[in-house]
Amino acid sequence: MTISLNVAVLHGPNLNRLGKREPAIYGSRTLDDIDAALRVLAAELHVSIICTQTNHEGAYVDAIHAAADRGTHGLLLNPGAYTHTSVAIRDAVAAVGLPMVEVHLSNVYAREAFRHHSTIADIAVGRVMGFGADSYLLGLQGLVRHLRETAAARGA
Amino acid sequence: MTISLNVAVLHGPNLNRLGKREPAIYGSRTLDDIDAALRVLAAELHVSIICTQTNHEGAYVDAIHAAADRGTHGLLLNPGAYTHTSVAIRDAVAAVGLPMVEVHLSNVYAREAFRHHSTIADIAVGRVMGFGADSYLLGLQGLVRHLRETAAARGA
Amino acid sequence: MTISLNVAVLHGPNLNRLGKREPAIYGSRTLDDIDAALRVLAAELHVSIICTQTNHEGAYVDAIHAAADRGTHGLLLNPGAYTHTSVAIRDAVAAVGLPMVEVHLSNVYAREAFRHHSTIADIAVGRVMGFGADSYLLGLQGLVRHLRETAAARGA
Amino acid sequence: MTISLNVAVLHGPNLNRLGKREPAIYGSRTLDDIDAALRVLAAELHVSIICTQTNHEGAYVDAIHAAADRGTHGLLLNPGAYTHTSVAIRDAVAAVGLPMVEVHLSNVYAREAFRHHSTIADIAVGRVMGFGADSYLLGLQGLVRHLRETAAARGA
Amino acid sequence: MTISLNVAVLHGPNLNRLGKREPAIYGSRTLDDIDAALRVLAAELHVSIICTQTNHEGAYVDAIHAAADRGTHGLLLNPGAYTHTSVAIRDAVAAVGLPMVEVHLSNVYAREAFRHHSTIADIAVGRVMGFGADSYLLGLQGLVRHLRETAAARGA
Amino acid sequence: MTISLNVAVLHGPNLNRLGKREPAIYGSRTLDDIDAALRVLAAELHVSIICTQTNHEGAYVDAIHAAADRGTHGLLLNPGAYTHTSVAIRDAVAAVGLPMVEVHLSNVYAREAFRHHSTIADIAVGRVMGFGADSYLLGLQGLVRHLRETAAARGA
Amino acid sequence: MTISLNVAVLHGPNLNRLGKREPAIYGSRTLDDIDAALRVLAAELHVSIICTQTNHEGAYVDAIHAAADRGTHGLLLNPGAYTHTSVAIRDAVAAVGLPMVEVHLSNVYAREAFRHHSTIADIAVGRVMGFGADSYLLGLQGLVRHLRETAAARGA
Amino acid sequence: MTISLNVAVLHGPNLNRLGKREPAIYGSRTLDDIDAALRVLAAELHVSIICTQTNHEGAYVDAIHAAADRGTHGLLLNPGAYTHTSVAIRDAVAAVGLPMVEVHLSNVYAREAFRHHSTIADIAVGRVMGFGADSYLLGLQGLVRHLRETAAARGA
Amino acid sequence: MTISLNVAVLHGPNLNRLGKREPAIYGSRTLDDIDAALRVLAAELHVSIICTQTNHEGAYVDAIHAAADRGTHGLLLNPGAYTHTSVAIRDAVAAVGLPMVEVHLSNVYAREAFRHHSTIADIAVGRVMGFGADSYLLGLQGLVRHLRETAAARGA
Amino acid sequence: MTISLNVAVLHGPNLNRLGKREPAIYGSRTLDDIDAALRVLAAELHVSIICTQTNHEGAYVDAIHAAADRGTHGLLLNPGAYTHTSVAIRDAVAAVGLPMVEVHLSNVYAREAFRHHSTIADIAVGRVMGFGADSYLLGLQGLVRHLRETAAARGA
Amino acid sequence: MTISLNVAVLHGPNLNRLGKREPAIYGSRTLDDIDAALRVLAAELHVSIICTQTNHEGAYVDAIHAAADRGTHGLLLNPGAYTHTSVAIRDAVAAVGLPMVEVHLSNVYAREAFRHHSTIADIAVGRVMGFGADSYLLGLQGLVRHLRETAAARGA
Amino acid sequence: MTISLNVAVLHGPNLNRLGKREPAIYGSRTLDDIDAALRVLAAELHVSIICTQTNHEGAYVDAIHAAADRGTHGLLLNPGAYTHTSVAIRDAVAAVGLPMVEVHLSNVYAREAFRHHSTIADIAVGRVMGFGADSYLLGLQGLVRHLRETAAARGA
Repeated sequence: MTISLNVAVLHGPNLNRLGKREPAIYGSRTLDDIDAALRVLAAELHVSIICTQTNHEGAYVDAIHAAADRGTHGLLLNPGAYTHTSVAIRDAVAAVGLPMVEVHLSNVYAREAFRHHSTIADIAVGRVMGFGADSYLLGLQGLVRHLRETAAARGA
Repeated sequence: MTISLNVAVLHGPNLNRLGKREPAIYGSRTLDDIDAALRVLAAELHVSIICTQTNHEGAYVDAIHAAADRGTHGLLLNPGAYTHTSVAIRDAVAAVGLPMVEVHLSNVYAREAFRHHSTIADIAVGRVMGFGADSYLLGLQGLVRHLRETAAARGA
Repeated sequence: MTISLNVAVLHGPNLNRLGKREPAIYGSRTLDDIDAALRVLAAELHVSIICTQTNHEGAYVDAIHAAADRGTHGLLLNPGAYTHTSVAIRDAVAAVGLPMVEVHLSNVYAREAFRHHSTIADIAVGRVMGFGADSYLLGLQGLVRHLRETAAARGA
Repeated sequence: MTISLNVAVLHGPNLNRLGKREPAIYGSRTLDDIDAALRVLAAELHVSIICTQTNHEGAYVDAIHAAADRGTHGLLLNPGAYTHTSVAIRDAVAAVGLPMVEVHLSNVYAREAFRHHSTIADIAVGRVMGFGADSYLLGLQGLVRHLRETAAARGA
Repeated sequence: MTISLNVAVLHGPNLNRLGKREPAIYGSRTLDDIDAALRVLAAELHVSIICTQTNHEGAYVDAIHAAADRGTHGLLLNPGAYTHTSVAIRDAVAAVGLPMVEVHLSNVYAREAFRHHSTIADIAVGRVMGFGADSYLLGLQGLVRHLRETAAARGA
Repeated sequence: MTISLNVAVLHGPNLNRLGKREPAIYGSRTLDDIDAALRVLAAELHVSIICTQTNHEGAYVDAIHAAADRGTHGLLLNPGAYTHTSVAIRDAVAAVGLPMVEVHLSNVYAREAFRHHSTIADIAVGRVMGFGADSYLLGLQGLVRHLRETAAARGA
Repeated sequence: MTISLNVAVLHGPNLNRLGKREPAIYGSRTLDDIDAALRVLAAELHVSIICTQTNHEGAYVDAIHAAADRGTHGLLLNPGAYTHTSVAIRDAVAAVGLPMVEVHLSNVYAREAFRHHSTIADIAVGRVMGFGADSYLLGLQGLVRHLRETAAARGA
Repeated sequence: MTISLNVAVLHGPNLNRLGKREPAIYGSRTLDDIDAALRVLAAELHVSIICTQTNHEGAYVDAIHAAADRGTHGLLLNPGAYTHTSVAIRDAVAAVGLPMVEVHLSNVYAREAFRHHSTIADIAVGRVMGFGADSYLLGLQGLVRHLRETAAARGA
Repeated sequence: MTISLNVAVLHGPNLNRLGKREPAIYGSRTLDDIDAALRVLAAELHVSIICTQTNHEGAYVDAIHAAADRGTHGLLLNPGAYTHTSVAIRDAVAAVGLPMVEVHLSNVYAREAFRHHSTIADIAVGRVMGFGADSYLLGLQGLVRHLRETAAARGA
Repeated sequence: MTISLNVAVLHGPNLNRLGKREPAIYGSRTLDDIDAALRVLAAELHVSIICTQTNHEGAYVDAIHAAADRGTHGLLLNPGAYTHTSVAIRDAVAAVGLPMVEVHLSNVYAREAFRHHSTIADIAVGRVMGFGADSYLLGLQGLVRHLRETAAARGA
Repeated sequence: MTISLNVAVLHGPNLNRLGKREPAIYGSRTLDDIDAALRVLAAELHVSIICTQTNHEGAYVDAIHAAADRGTHGLLLNPGAYTHTSVAIRDAVAAVGLPMVEVHLSNVYAREAFRHHSTIADIAVGRVMGFGADSYLLGLQGLVRHLRETAAARGA
Repeated sequence: MTISLNVAVLHGPNLNRLGKREPAIYGSRTLDDIDAALRVLAAELHVSIICTQTNHEGAYVDAIHAAADRGTHGLLLNPGAYTHTSVAIRDAVAAVGLPMVEVHLSNVYAREAFRHHSTIADIAVGRVMGFGADSYLLGLQGLVRHLRETAAARGA
């Protein structure tokens, strides 16, 4: 029987603007579209997910704490700009001790040098980037397989 | 006929303390005084302005989004300490795609080395610093001229 | 006669998780326990203290402003992860002009390199770290002695 | 109708040792197992793949050229240790002009600092790492979706 | 009564080429046009100005000395390329002890990294950049206000 | 019953000059005064202490060895200038394997950059600095509590 | 028919000393000898050249401007020591918009590290160095071929 | 009488792709075309040349050894991407002790920063770059003149 | 009874040129001479050795794999120039999990700075350098003693 | 008999302002005073000196050439700000091949970091700094003794 | 006939603690044991040795001087922690002009980064590290062979 | 009347070897010769001097303290190798508060890069280097003039 899993998806600053501006360039896909696609995939994978977006670093930390308190099994994080600057979010991930996958819409290594550093990269299970909204879908697959394999290994 | 313009002025952390302490040293000019002077100048320039202050990086990002959503034409930003650390504010400016002028009360290059870096400098139209409250007034003039010239060029 | 003093204790992000997870490893001491111990010591030292915790950088800045506005004589700060990244908190301390002592539960120099930099170290009266909850108690003693000596020197 | 696609998978140095030593630690999955799993997924995706392994940087370059010459549509690359040192492989990717996805078994950011640099990261469509053999499978999905979307966009 | 002031405007190397090439790109405004606009503004501000251009670092130093010797109250400097390399010009400003404002046509922080360093930034009263010819006009306003406020403060 | 403890206090170079010069500036407290205060506190804490000062790096190393050989339980070190340069002292601490607390009279982070590095910081139990002579007293308290808690934990 | 071309050759500081000292070591070839050889080659190539030497950075800038003003098609530059320090010369080349080839008598990469940086390398068409006086001759050939190919391409 | 000379031309990785892709952009000139042009020039200069291309660093080293073993007088090297990474090729040049000229099709200083370093630059006689295929022809001229002058000097 | 051991000696690029050029300077000792001396010593130590040389990084990796596959107990490596650049060789050593000793003919720290870094130094048992061919002989002694002590410790 | 010597003293930019401003701070000693003192000392030492000042780097280079051409035996240089930036002056000193002593009025190591680098320090015979005008007098003594000893050694 | 040689072995700080603590971890071999083994090997090699240990940098320098004064032919140095910090020891080795071999018990490149730098590495004949006490024995062999070969070469 | 002054001259490590080795290269002048020359000059200047040499950093610190305790007016320091590494000596100079002149026999900027840093340069009155033993004599003159001028200024 497939193990039931809860996953928290946390979107960082400015991701609420997705699809609101210049659809010819950035596409017309909004954050709601991404969340909807994630929910479809989650259903296929028999995973329950909750998606949250905030522009506030502190609220991002609060949301990680809250996810842990409600029994979440894994985190799918795109901290946006806070990826490059926030030690607080890193510490929150470490504090709750949950497996975490880091995703980005764009390939950050094809952009400015200050985007090449991630404060959470070294404590992530894995990283997926550059596939647009698909980065989230691939990341969710990877996270769920990791959680199921780990659970299976513990069960063995 | 002069084109009607909306400008958002956003003050960053600790600027709410201006004039509250040691007036003999820092002057007795408060943030309210600066906003009042900006409103007088804006009226002369036939520009409508809205001034906001916050100590929260996330709220600063929210305010940039809100300005864009209410039809602002240009941003006059003094992100204070977040100038040196916030990628989120930079991304917000880029996300809304509005012309932005960066101002500082002091000449940050005459201060500590960590103040010499600005995350938004390279995406600003222009920068003004070191003239105290006058930095805002000069920055507003520069921004308005830039907006009018750009509009004129588009109109041509 | 001992001079009456007010001290503000400000805990940074993730410190609200203390003692909530894996007590066998991190100990079962919670932030409430630390605050209680601080209050006992404060009473012995005839000092009044107010303890606050927040995960938000902006709220941390607000709290420093509020402490100054209510007549606090000294700050006992553990900004957690913001120690390493926040210029806004540094500026807030400088803006209110209160003597400040920096404390950390762990010895940050025995941890990752990115924890070796503190944005407030050079404007602190003193620093105490590595003694777990005792870092706060030793820091409070040091701050109070500093405040009393300074007051005495001014009185002389 | 789904577009027919050819993908080349290129494994770099030492990956031929996978599963040959200490299966209790590294798992008993060999490179042949990974190639078999890739072929199953490729069939599901209606993609034809060719998998190659070499310990020689020059042979890796030759293989990229050969892939281009036989009409490959996309590259799925794990250059192993050459990821961090080879400009020749980067130039080969650029020279053939094919969309490329970079994958790694481990999360290289959780390892030594010299593994954090990749000479091909900035010219990749996307990157997947840290999911063990699943990194290849997720990367293949991402690459195929990218190729199909690009083809569709061109067809539009 | 408004205090009478003398200001020296010094243009650095290559600024004599302004408007001479590709007017469609750089505009058709020449250095003479900028000087004319400065003279109009100076008249409005009841300030006397002398504008000089040179391609020679040594002549730029000589000109600063000469300005001081003829009783100049403030310097409005755009040292062009020498901004980034000349310690001699910095020392000349320090040697004559006159308040100085640094201006640039372009926003140097949006250009190559070697233009981000200025040898005179830390001894400037203020800096204005990015507004094209308007940078000079805004800079002159800022300098004159600074000179008048300082004089008023001394007179108090 | 309180466990009986031996602590060695080692003062580094130039600390023998304390109080000998310009008492109006540096205070009239000599190293003998500090040692006397430490002995009073040690007596209160039921700890036996031996205080030593030397200007010689090698003698400092010898003293650490000697402390270990006479059954010392913990080290309270202020290596002065050797804090920043001596690997030999670090190795001595590691070689004898005794818990160590590092103290400094001044807050070294408010001084020259070369004082920000300590060769022993990462192997210290804790660090106290900036409280003048009180740094020693707070450091001794912290060290003794650490030794008693460790002993208690071992006894449990 | 071969297109008629004008080329300006500009020699930087100290090159006027060539051949004047220790001919046994540096050779007896003077700058006049080099200019003569250049004129012979120019005649063969049906190119008109003007050669100038100066020790003054500003005069070097002036000479680039003058070359442009007299209808020069390409620049053959050896800025000597100014190669490593002059942004003004770089800006002059960019300002006049002429194709430029950089030459050096010696192989600067076999000399001190400070000679490895050139402020004009990235805006040169090509670079030739290490062949003594032949560097100029090879550079002139390369420049002329480049100018003729570009002209032919435009004519096509 | 002109001295008879043997020269080895060695092309590095990816240069075999020249002219194979997007001739509108990169030109239709292939490596065979370059080798043919080199042979024509060599004949004019009464020099015998052998041209080799390889994508393998080790084979490049082998080829340098082989050139030395067959009595080659000088090396004309374009190590392509290995220019920036190979110490083995540098050591091979030093080991055989032959005069070497380094050439590049493009001006590497106008490209990515990682192309600015060459492991062989400091042991080259001279360097030519940026002139496309002409870089090889100019480099061969420079190498042959150097070899003849050196031989003449030895003969003197 | 002495344990029977197999050791693989791997020589890197250009070492096949030893003794072939300028024997007055580099000595007339060839790589064959070194291998012969190693075989004599190996016989004395009751060790079986196989010596290999290659100029190809990939072949060096292959040789390490092959050594492991034929039951080698320890590696004596002189990767020559690849010492400074090859992550692939490092990974090969780690992948086969054999004790390794690194040797160099010259003292690399007395040569160019780029030779001071070794990609395998931190995973070596020990390093010997600067003794010419004797470096190999001393390194073989050290490796064999290490293998015998380790085996003895395991046997204990 | 004392050997007759000619020495050239060259003062760099801004030194012509000495003593012209704020004599209470910088002293009333002008450059003429220093030259006069140098002439008195030169007469005592039986040395003929010529003193020159310029604000132009190129003129400084010209002056070094001129000194060599008129038979100067040694150079006493204070290049002022050009000390830190001019490769041209360094090359001029090397080109004329004259013994040179570098002097500075102030101790440049007690000033800003950018003054700690001197382009001529490593080719100087000796350096004297920090003694005000006496730096010149001590430097002249040192230069003359060096010239006489060298001449004597050659004569021996 | 074998040449008679004197060798000085100098052990640096903390090496006197060897074998005194935790023999299960560090082994029970003391410095006396190492010296004894060295004396046995020295006798076999017909070399006379004197072994000294000190924790004092100055005494280490004195010992090098004393070794030279008593006619020592070569130095076998393990300066311990002073390896990484002492320029004085380097200068002492250079001042006495004796061939020197550097040895370390551990492989310093497998330890902290600050141990990777050695102030004497570049003036050593050779280096041996990582073989525990055997490093000394191998180093002595290497030094003696070097001394005998050098003497033989001089005798030839 | 000339003011009576006491000066302490402190020679650092290895300076006791001067003149003892290879007099043809380093000269036959010993440290005793330098001290004798200093005493002759001191007598001429009516200054009393005491000269000390030590190889021990701690003893150097002790000697500075002792000089201060016996009423010395100024320090003439050549700390030799400790110039580059000792913070303890810097602190000793600062602790005693005496004017100090730093001298070196050689021009340290013409030697290895690690000799370019001096821990005491920024707190020296002046620096003299490169004149051999004359550096001491010139340094003593400079120090004495500085002490007399300062005393005169205080007396005024």
